[in-house]
Amino acid sequence: MVLQGPDFQKHVLVLVGLPARGKTFVARKMARYLSWLGYRTRTFNVGEYRRAIAGAKQPASFFAPDAEHRELRERIAMKTLDDLLEYLDERGDVAIYDATNTERARRRRVYERCKAAGAQVIFVESICEDQAVVEANLRENKARSPDYAGMDAEAAIADFRERIAQYERTYAPVDDEDRCYVKLIDVGRKVVVNRMQGYLGARLVFFLMNLHSGRRKIWLTRHGESEFNVENRIGGDPPLSDRGRIYAHSLAEFFAEQKPERLEAWTSSLQRSVSTAAPLGVPKLARRALDEIDAGICDGMTYQEIREQLPAEYRARAADKFRYRYPEGESYMDVIQRLEPIIFDLERQKNPVLVVAHHAVARALYAYLMGRAQEDTPHVPVPLHTLIELTPTAYGYEEKRFELAPYINTEDTLHPMSVGAPPLPSIR
Amino acid sequence: MVLQGPDFQKHVLVLVGLPARGKTFVARKMARYLSWLGYRTRTFNVGEYRRAIAGAKQPASFFAPDAEHRELRERIAMKTLDDLLEYLDERGDVAIYDATNTERARRRRVYERCKAAGAQVIFVESICEDQAVVEANLRENKARSPDYAGMDAEAAIADFRERIAQYERTYAPVDDEDRCYVKLIDVGRKVVVNRMQGYLGARLVFFLMNLHSGRRKIWLTRHGESEFNVENRIGGDPPLSDRGRIYAHSLAEFFAEQKPERLEAWTSSLQRSVSTAAPLGVPKLARRALDEIDAGICDGMTYQEIREQLPAEYRARAADKFRYRYPEGESYMDVIQRLEPIIFDLERQKNPVLVVAHHAVARALYAYLMGRAQEDTPHVPVPLHTLIELTPTAYGYEEKRFELAPYINTEDTLHPMSVGAPPLPSIR
Repeated sequence: MVLQGPDFQKHVLVLVGLPARGKTFVARKMARYLSWLGYRTRTFNVGEYRRAIAGAKQPASFFAPDAEHRELRERIAMKTLDDLLEYLDERGDVAIYDATNTERARRRRVYERCKAAGAQVIFVESICEDQAVVEANLRENKARSPDYAGMDAEAAIADFRERIAQYERTYAPVDDEDRCYVKLIDVGRKVVVNRMQGYLGARLVFFLMNLHSGRRKIWLTRHGESEFNVENRIGGDPPLSDRGRIYAHSLAEFFAEQKPERLEAWTSSLQRSVSTAAPLGVPKLARRALDEIDAGICDGMTYQEIREQLPAEYRARAADKFRYRYPEGESYMDVIQRLEPIIFDLERQKNPVLVVAHHAVARALYAYLMGRAQEDTPHVPVPLHTLIELTPTAYGYEEKRFELAPYINTEDTLHPMSVGAPPLPSIR
Repeated sequence: MVLQGPDFQKHVLVLVGLPARGKTFVARKMARYLSWLGYRTRTFNVGEYRRAIAGAKQPASFFAPDAEHRELRERIAMKTLDDLLEYLDERGDVAIYDATNTERARRRRVYERCKAAGAQVIFVESICEDQAVVEANLRENKARSPDYAGMDAEAAIADFRERIAQYERTYAPVDDEDRCYVKLIDVGRKVVVNRMQGYLGARLVFFLMNLHSGRRKIWLTRHGESEFNVENRIGGDPPLSDRGRIYAHSLAEFFAEQKPERLEAWTSSLQRSVSTAAPLGVPKLARRALDEIDAGICDGMTYQEIREQLPAEYRARAADKFRYRYPEGESYMDVIQRLEPIIFDLERQKNPVLVVAHHAVARALYAYLMGRAQEDTPHVPVPLHTLIELTPTAYGYEEKRFELAPYINTEDTLHPMSVGAPPLPSIR
């Protein structure tokens, strides 16, 4: 696989940090990004193993650095690591080890076991110097954690503070002895990178550098119906149809009502996308990376024509819609690769954004944001004239869909090539 | 211009570091990269102003932090900054301020003047913890610097050491007070990034993270002659012609003789590129980002056919070959944007690389590596069956061209659309 280059090596990303420092937030972001790029990636959370092995609802004293508890905690951590290494050995490309790993001895042990298994280790430390962020994380963590299920809120927070204090007693921040690392200080403010090597490491760091913990909505839509949509043709650079123009105005009305502050609209370079955003009274950015999948020699054809004139292509696409590349055009895989800068910009962006894209591109962006498996991308339902609103939650996005008039039922039924797609639960 | 986004702000990149820490190396790399991306960029070197104002060949004592010399040096630094701000005000997008800037008071003054002029400031500090690198820089700097022209080598080095010592007396490394900064520690080993914002900043940091001071050759060639080349057609995915296959074997022979250690070959995804590299016994990586410029609706046509069938397109392209975008295809500008990851990988790569590309792509890569102005890109001569060898020097590359049999004189004469190109001196 081209993405992974000739020198691809399995990787273990080892989180480091006190409790309530956003480690799991970072772990999930990394997992979503790497999976979307096509790396088989899985997160191993020591807290989950602890609850399964030692039982949930351990008090803060469980986390004290005394001999008895330390031995048990070490056993749990190593059991998690066993499973992680087994996963890498069997089928994984990247494994994420989500635990505090605040002691140097633990990190050395993890490093050596991963090295012995032939994997490259990158430590990813999350540090919060901003006490307000720690407080917010702490309150959210407490509310979320099964460790405190059913417990009084204030008692839980007090216990969690005590747990953090236990860790602080022996915390040694990552340093040059840990070799290859990224330190994220107040996610988005300061980054320290040491001895990063290879393709995956470089991309990962760039990705992490763009993260921030601010929360803002993202809206995703396809362009309004185009004249090609009406004729069921793919590709080209057609103008909007009458119904498409009405959708563009409905979209503008929607945002005139909602008035999200500092909203920006990103479009592709194609006129059906640009025209859909035109009535919006917000700053716009046209980006070629958002252009529709290039259908190569099939550009401008209907699926019916492809079936009749290029039956071998038709069959090849039906057999593997994800990997299928149009002759002289692109595959979904290619689209994902060229969307990477958009993903980085989406992460970096602190303002709310409306992305006015195209079918394949909207599917790929949606798959990234919602953490769908790469191979599902060509089958994600993103109908015309539907606005998808994504509201950030602690670790992901909550989705709402708005069918803005004129509603087009499901144009997928018009596409005989989509018939093979597995049915997905409608979120509507 | 799309590249610069809706919120583009002028930038000043302020170098920081003791003498012989590679500041000018970093400044030139940044200037080349940003110019290539299309930002009007210029470097202002305080050393040059010093030699012009105070005269060359100042002894180390000139750099002492005493009142008299400090006042003169401050005046020179501010005169340089005046010119820099004038450039930004008149036409520049990015200005690079290449000086030591090792004192906090100087940095504050520079920061405030730039801010007052509405520019965003990024400090870029270069630190060498590796004494061997400092020694090597010192010897090279000494040899290169007009400050020591005609002086005995050992005396010059001794004086240069003393000059460094003068700076060390008052050196305050960049810290969080300097707000937005990148610290490069032993270029390529460790990077610290603080409060980086915006598109340009994020890209710049990623670029800097990929730099290293190692030196290895880069070879650049187009694929061997294809069957479309023979018919003078553009685009498509044709196989090699007989002459093209002979070139592929000549190339393999060339490298079998030279035997560069750990050589890698990067090709596009198109068969004429892949087949050209096929006889080489080295690891290969096929990358779609290296594919030829997409000629859109002109794909597969000859220039003669374009002239006859699409005369308006023909004229538009002749009028501005750099910005011209084939309908449903790409412009040179688009090619440059999608080549950015290749540039990053070329910088990061420590092994020698042979890139087997296509006409427009090879021109764009060459323009980056040799620091040619963006607009010259479509006119850089890169003939078929010519291997370009680039050997790194202190701040750039030295070029050699090899015409490997079967030599094709200059296929540019076959392309009537290239007639308008200004003649460039042949480097051969």
